[in-house]
Parts: sequence; C-alpha cells; structure tokens
Amino acid sequence: MPISRLCPSVPQIVACTQNDQTGSKAVSGRPKGSPQLTRWSRARALRSGKKLDRSSLRTQPPEPNTPLSQFSLPVDPDDAANLDGADVMTIKSIYMVSDGTGWTAEHCVNAALGQFDYCLVDRGCPVSTHLFSGIDDTEKLLEITKQAAKEGALLVYTLADQQLAMAAKQACKLWGVPSTDVLGPITEAIASHLGVSPSGLPRGASGLPLSDDYFRRIEAVEFTIKQDDGASPQNLAKADILLTGVSRTGKTPLSIYLAQKGYRVANVPIVLGVAMPRTLFEVDPQKVFGLTINPLVLQNIRSARTKTMGLSSDGRSIYSEMSYVREELEFAGRLFAQNPLWPVIDVTGKAIEETAAVLLRLYHDRKNKCTMSRISKRY
Amino acid sequence: MPISRLCPSVPQIVACTQNDQTGSKAVSGRPKGSPQLTRWSRARALRSGKKLDRSSLRTQPPEPNTPLSQFSLPVDPDDAANLDGADVMTIKSIYMVSDGTGWTAEHCVNAALGQFDYCLVDRGCPVSTHLFSGIDDTEKLLEITKQAAKEGALLVYTLADQQLAMAAKQACKLWGVPSTDVLGPITEAIASHLGVSPSGLPRGASGLPLSDDYFRRIEAVEFTIKQDDGASPQNLAKADILLTGVSRTGKTPLSIYLAQKGYRVANVPIVLGVAMPRTLFEVDPQKVFGLTINPLVLQNIRSARTKTMGLSSDGRSIYSEMSYVREELEFAGRLFAQNPLWPVIDVTGKAIEETAAVLLRLYHDRKNKCTMSRISKRY
Repeated sequence: MPISRLCPSVPQIVACTQNDQTGSKAVSGRPKGSPQLTRWSRARALRSGKKLDRSSLRTQPPEPNTPLSQFSLPVDPDDAANLDGADVMTIKSIYMVSDGTGWTAEHCVNAALGQFDYCLVDRGCPVSTHLFSGIDDTEKLLEITKQAAKEGALLVYTLADQQLAMAAKQACKLWGVPSTDVLGPITEAIASHLGVSPSGLPRGASGLPLSDDYFRRIEAVEFTIKQDDGASPQNLAKADILLTGVSRTGKTPLSIYLAQKGYRVANVPIVLGVAMPRTLFEVDPQKVFGLTINPLVLQNIRSARTKTMGLSSDGRSIYSEMSYVREELEFAGRLFAQNPLWPVIDVTGKAIEETAAVLLRLYHDRKNKCTMSRISKRY
Repeated sequence: MPISRLCPSVPQIVACTQNDQTGSKAVSGRPKGSPQLTRWSRARALRSGKKLDRSSLRTQPPEPNTPLSQFSLPVDPDDAANLDGADVMTIKSIYMVSDGTGWTAEHCVNAALGQFDYCLVDRGCPVSTHLFSGIDDTEKLLEITKQAAKEGALLVYTLADQQLAMAAKQACKLWGVPSTDVLGPITEAIASHLGVSPSGLPRGASGLPLSDDYFRRIEAVEFTIKQDDGASPQNLAKADILLTGVSRTGKTPLSIYLAQKGYRVANVPIVLGVAMPRTLFEVDPQKVFGLTINPLVLQNIRSARTKTMGLSSDGRSIYSEMSYVREELEFAGRLFAQNPLWPVIDVTGKAIEETAAVLLRLYHDRKNKCTMSRISKRY
C-alpha cells in the first residue's frame, strides 16, 4: 500500500518541498538500483560478518535500534515500487528533528553522508536534508513524521524530552518511517556511567547560566579575529597557538576553527622577501605551527582567487605565477628549517577540520608528553 | 573480579591520566550516589514506559546497541565497589575513539553531557573526556580499549572502517567496557535508505577532492571576518545575512558561527548617537536581523569587559554605566521600530548556537514561505 495512503497530505509542508520535486525530475529514471544494491548487500554482509542474499534481509527478525530492518523493503526496487514508486529511485529525503537547535542531528547526518561521498559527488544518489529545530510538542512532531512518511523520508532525531523521543519512535514504527535516535543511546550510556539521570531538557532550556568555558570560547574567537593575518604582532605571546604559512594555506579558517574550540590563535603570513615579526621568534616555539602545501595545488587555488578577486583579467598575476609560488614556498621552507621545533603540517587536500585534528594531536602530545595521543578535558 | 585484572596496564597512557587521578582525589568520598541513582532509575523507568526497580535492571536480557545493559552493575555503588572501587564515586572518564578527526564523537558527547549540566555545574558528577583521533589500526584500538577497561571508562566511538567498529564492539564486550557506536546506526540507516553501501573510509581518506560547498564555506568565513564590526559598509549588499545591535550582543561570534555554516555575514554595530551606514537601509530588509538584550545582563557583561580590558580600574566607564546602557538599547529599539521588517532577536541568556538556530529558522521561513519551519539542503 502506498505510504502516501497511510497519512494525509500536509500542504504547508509540501509547499516547501518543490525543490525536491524538481530534483526528482532532474534525476529520475536512472538505472542506478542494482549495482548500488549489490554494493550495499556486500557492505551489509561484511557488517553482519556473513554473506547475505537480499531476500534474507526481509525475513530476518527485526533488530531493535536498527532502522535497517524497519525499512528493509524500500531498498529493493521491485518491492519499493509498490511502496512509493515515483520517489524510490530519485532524490531521497532525510528529515532531522530536534527539540533543541538541531545542530547535533545536522552534524551527525553530514558526518554519516561523508561515507557516501563517492556517489553523492556525481549525484549518483541525490539526497536532500530538512532540519526541523525547536520541535517541542507532540503535534508538530507527528505532523513532521507524517510528512516524512509521505515523502518516504528517513527521520533522524535528537529529542531531549523522553516522552517526545518515545512518541517519535512509536509514530515512525506506526507509519513505517525508518528512524534513528542519534543521542538516545549515548545519553543513556552516560546516565548509566555517571549514575545520574538526564535532565530531559534541550541545551539552553535548563535555565542554567552559560558556563565559563562557553565565555572562554567566545573570547578566543574575538581574540583570534583581532589577530588575523598578522595584525598586532605585539600580542603573539598571548596566543595559545600560532600559525604561519604563505597566503592560501588556510591560516584564517583554521584559526577560526581552533578558536571555536577555545584556543586563542594568532596567524602570521609568510610573504616572499618580507621579514617575519621579531616577536614570532620570542614566543614558546612549542606553540608555533608551520603550514605548507603542494606548489601545483597552491598555484591553482591562487589562480582561482585572482580571478574571483578580479586582480587580473586572465587570472594570472605575480601572486599566482608558478615560479613565484615555488619561490615563496621555498622561502617558507627555509624559515621552517631554521626553526626545527615548529612542526610543519602539509595541508594539501586536507579539510580544515582534518588539519585541526592533526595540529591539536601534536599540540596536546607536547603538553601531555605521552606516546598515545589524546586530547583531554574536564567537566 | 577487578577490571584491572582483566587487562595489563598501559604505562604510556597511564602517564597521561594524572590529571584525572588528581581530579579523583579532589572529589573523592562525597555521598552522591543514592539520590542520583533514584533520579536515574526514575528516568530509566520513564524511558522504558514502566516503573523498574534497580535490581531488575541487572537481570533483564542484554539489549543490542544499549550500553546501559552492558554496564548496569557499576551504576550501583555496592556492586560497583567490587568492580573498581576507587573510581566509581569519583571522576568518570569518557573515551572518544575515531579513525577520522573525532569531532563528531566530541560533538555528540558534548551534546549528551548537556543533559547532565545540572550536576556537572557543581562538580556533582565530575567527568573527564579523552579524544583519540586517527585510530586506524586494531592494535592502537585495543590498547585504548584496554586502558578504558582499566580506568572504568565509557568508550564512545565513530569508526568508518567496519572491521575496526566490529573489533571495538567485541573488545568492549570482552573487557566489560560500556560502549556506544555513535555513527554506526545512522550510517546503516542511510545506507538502507539510499540503497548504497558506505565507503568505510573516514572523511578525507576517500581521496575525493574537497567539494564546492566546502570552499563556499571557507569563502564565507573569510568574507565575514573582513566585514566584522562595521568594516567596509560598501560590501553590505554582498552579505546573505546582516546583524545589527549594540556592543556585546554577540554579533561577532554569531557572525562567525553562521559563516561556518556557509552564510556570508556582515555585522553593523549600533552606537548611541552614531548614524548607521546608509547602505544598511538600501539592502533587502529580509536579510537584516536586530539583536537585543536585557539591560541588566548587558551592563554586567560590559562591566566585566571593561575590567578585563583595563578600561577603568573599578570596571566602571560610560560604556558600562547603567544609564548609558539603557539609553543605547533605547536608541537601538527606536532604530528597530523604524525598520519593522527586521526581526529582532533577544539574545539574553542564549548561547550563540541557540541564537543561530532561531535566526536561521526565520531566515529560511522568509525564503521558503512555509509555516512549518525547516532548513533544507541538497547533496
């Protein structure tokens, strides 16, 4: 029976899903199913530790907390056609519902989607996500769940209120919506570990004042912005972390990313032939990190940048000339060689958060002096 | 049998846990257990939908994916004493293990800990977290799991590699370490939903180039920093979102937070008696958001700031005078009244991410023209 028959349409939400519909048309009718399903079955078999044929997926007993079993039918195009034909082979919706900000649900869905980059990148499996935050009553929750059923969406939720979480679980079961409770299991594990109960309140609703740690992070962001791009070198000593590298090695976004984790960061640009501020060599070298990058990649980034910044019509300028790029990187390389205590991180092809992870591992290793790298915090 | 007997000590890790040990001493011997356990049982009963007595927790059959049942003993001080006496009533460790950056595990643990703020705030249940990122071989993984068992820690993991995830699960079961797989269930749900298999590779390891969306977010951060605090008002039209409010309403950290989500943000300070840039009134009013705050709270924040900035020895200056604070907020209020299309958000007691959630709901409602607020994205 079509899922759509199980629940009434919710016009004011449907009105928001036109983009998805367009998306569906754009990619409809591609013969994507079978090879993907084969890969999926292989992965599934791997996970369960034995080879499974797809039919067996449908006959195995339901596994609690495993949305896979709740929604095993639609992954088979043949059966799925009977469920919600039009949408199954086209764009797939993921609903994210939270009684808080919803950023945790969004973060986890993004992280999990990282595992599917290989087929997202070429629109092999187009996905649309829809974040519903501040959903703090059952009526709104059920309306969204109905719409998820109607769209054949996956519903991912982070609901601090235990009655709401229970209602979401039951409604999804009733209407055949595959669902995942992102924070439930970890919250329950922590409750058990600490021997105390969760408040059941979304963050901010507890009425507790914002913590000192919170204000420290805000202060770190403000400090870091003031120090950006070599501003006020006299304050370098006040920074926890100093980044140095040539233009377009990602010093600024990396600084901000680290600042939001509570580190006061200063970044000092390396420019061919320009002397570095004296203060950089006076601070504890344990705080200083050099950034480097492959010359070809840097040259591409700079060419693109000169174009967007309109520095030159054909996207060429000294700044992005290969010879200049190489010379500047060699200049940086000599500086790093003269300061062997500065770790040098190659950012080529790395996302900011990956570089941040590498940098913070080194930073905390030096502080903790331990071979098994860890970043520790107190609450 | 003491957990410590089940596995050998791992000295180089133990060397890193001195802080925790100090922490343990600092808070040891407080009679915290019983009332907390009562609250915990109540919450547990609520969650399971029926009243449970604690003893029944230990006799119920193990629930897959529910660390609670794997580690139900230690939450009872009496039984726990037999397991790892010294640590049970003192600081509790949470190990976070990832074969990627570990930021998702950290984000989720922080979010879940938000549910325990009420007892973290007064060190009622002291917690230390330990993030192990880039753990990509079984040997390291097992070493960490052994140490978790030794410390009586909870182990939270995000392992893209399915064999590693399986190894973590089995090792935790073997050594009695309570554990939670944060991304496993959601990744499996998405695999089933899309009908494709996860790559099993942590983000960045796929070798795929960074996405356009990624570079758009980097560009947004760089734009936003350049526009901070009213800089280059001629560029206001290029911003997606404009924030305006008096000093210390959190414009800068909010701008940066939004920028990291890919929005180009400009913020324009409101200063008593200073005319606002003409361009602010020429941009689409749908993009402009006013920030306001309770005068008493603002006065406190400003007093603290003048102290830290050494603007005045006794922390008093015109800037933080109550009369000036009120006047400036009224000045802002009149400006907002003259521009009724600007939504005004009260940031009093709100964390940046909470204000961001409210603001983006309004922003996307205006774009989508739908009554059920949602933020949609395409992949």
